[in-house]
Amino acid sequence: MTNDSLATPTCILGLGLIGGSLMRDLAEASAPVYGWNRSAATAEAATAGGFDASTDLTAVLRRAQEDRALLVVGVPMFAVGGLLDQIAEHAPDCGITDVVSVKRAILDEVTARGMGDRYVGAHPMAGSEESGWDATRTGLYDGAAWVVCFDRADDARRGGTEVPESWTRTFRDVVALGKLVRSEVIPALADDHDRAVARISHMPHLLAYALAVVGDDGGPLTLSLAAGSFRDGTRVAGAEPDMVRSWCENNVAPVVEAVDEAIALLSAARDELVGEGTAAALSEAGFQAHGRYRARSGTRVLDGGVKLSHRPVIRVSPGAGDWIGELEHAQELGGRIEIF
Amino acid sequence: MTNDSLATPTCILGLGLIGGSLMRDLAEASAPVYGWNRSAATAEAATAGGFDASTDLTAVLRRAQEDRALLVVGVPMFAVGGLLDQIAEHAPDCGITDVVSVKRAILDEVTARGMGDRYVGAHPMAGSEESGWDATRTGLYDGAAWVVCFDRADDARRGGTEVPESWTRTFRDVVALGKLVRSEVIPALADDHDRAVARISHMPHLLAYALAVVGDDGGPLTLSLAAGSFRDGTRVAGAEPDMVRSWCENNVAPVVEAVDEAIALLSAARDELVGEGTAAALSEAGFQAHGRYRARSGTRVLDGGVKLSHRPVIRVSPGAGDWIGELEHAQELGGRIEIF
Repeated sequence: MTNDSLATPTCILGLGLIGGSLMRDLAEASAPVYGWNRSAATAEAATAGGFDASTDLTAVLRRAQEDRALLVVGVPMFAVGGLLDQIAEHAPDCGITDVVSVKRAILDEVTARGMGDRYVGAHPMAGSEESGWDATRTGLYDGAAWVVCFDRADDARRGGTEVPESWTRTFRDVVALGKLVRSEVIPALADDHDRAVARISHMPHLLAYALAVVGDDGGPLTLSLAAGSFRDGTRVAGAEPDMVRSWCENNVAPVVEAVDEAIALLSAARDELVGEGTAAALSEAGFQAHGRYRARSGTRVLDGGVKLSHRPVIRVSPGAGDWIGELEHAQELGGRIEIF
Repeated sequence: MTNDSLATPTCILGLGLIGGSLMRDLAEASAPVYGWNRSAATAEAATAGGFDASTDLTAVLRRAQEDRALLVVGVPMFAVGGLLDQIAEHAPDCGITDVVSVKRAILDEVTARGMGDRYVGAHPMAGSEESGWDATRTGLYDGAAWVVCFDRADDARRGGTEVPESWTRTFRDVVALGKLVRSEVIPALADDHDRAVARISHMPHLLAYALAVVGDDGGPLTLSLAAGSFRDGTRVAGAEPDMVRSWCENNVAPVVEAVDEAIALLSAARDELVGEGTAAALSEAGFQAHGRYRARSGTRVLDGGVKLSHRPVIRVSPGAGDWIGELEHAQELGGRIEIF
């Protein structure tokens, strides 16, 4: 990361699992960080843990404006619009990012308020079926994908205009934030991000719910026999349904597309079972697809403990050369970027 | 377990993940155990590990006949019929059980050969996406459900006839085997077992395959962003497709019923997404179902490390009183049995 970025304090708005774990990592790295949470219980728990947390949004935003902190929006989707209004009023010169699970809906809220020149959306691909301050921990983002959206730069490139300096500075800060918590920073446009997470996050939750119901409908003997494949296949069905519902409500078309694909695959398997007495096509296609996933995603640990990422690296210098084209290239590969 | 059961040697026919891990547990408990495997590589690996393994089926079966061992059939479904023919010829007086994932298809093979009076089907609900001797380990069955089928006894009860003494002795031996490897023994009729595993084992595999394909269809960015929910939701898509196909081929009607339920749930969620812009019904139903599963299945570890099973206990004395009715009662509850 650059010295500039270390010097930018981070102000986290919403201290649930994602925002709270981010606060822990930054504090552990001795980076300046403070935050706000609506509920007093969470702010008190954070304060009791030695963190700089408050329930006074106006005061926190004024402080952020004072030291030009990077604002990290970490509240549920339904609360984002109201929070942006407060930011517009009390912290008009701060860069803004967010850690919410959908990106188009947030970008639209930002754009509607004319705040796009200082907003760089993000989404750390980490979490669990748990939520709230009690679930926060350090290291949650280690090795995770940290998506950083570059729609504003892409728009400028297509329109033949300049990327605002405030946006490029925020972009650098957001990339540095992801690096600081040892994530791998992956650029994506908001719509492409939303299509991707419909398939690898929202769908797994809907399938887990469906599997949980199919198992439960079998009665006590069925649940009693459930072992590893059912446990792992339903793990995220323990996630708060309100959260999953909110993802789907803010990502309808991509989720419908993914659900339709799953229904088509299962219907074909059903037809093959009834007609041919086998499920060869889905078994073979799924096994092959799983092999490609394992080859492409995440990291593997070599003998000796060295971690090796499967993601290709693209080096990018924000503001220089065809840097926006390089971001597009990285997105196509699912690659991670290094800033120089 | 009883002294009788400890005195019965175990002869395992097929030393893959399931049979091989069973051999390891029995050897560790100093119980007499030996086995056969078709491939020389596996038998040699087992022998090199200090186990009593051979590729000479006739010799192994004659030895089993000599010491009245309990035979454990652990070969893939397609090889079961041929193996039963060999057992009929060379080990006509041994009790027989199996560890194959479907129970009706095996029972039919056994019944067709008139071997039902000494056969007690079983299915340990343990395993992983790995297979073969290299994947075997001790402790695989610790706390797992070990299904023991009692169709022969149920038939006798319904027909008003006596349960053959050879069957009851085999039943005792099979229950003792499950206990010896620290499993929880759960009685079930073959058809009820098959309906249950369609929902909690075969469906999770088909859904994992479908999810793997949906993710892969999203391209490199999608796979690059995959995190915990996709990893766990697709874990068993790494299982050998031939194995999963074999399960489905030998359990068609129950699998089709479960697939139809999943399709109906996903179709309803799709309609709600398109019509109402939300996925509230499935999210809520899945979350509630998952809670019931967690309350009913498996064990939880108390403070201090004590394991507490969620499964109710039914005490059964084979051959005495309404013991078959007690087995039916245990099946209804998904309960485990203790023999006295």
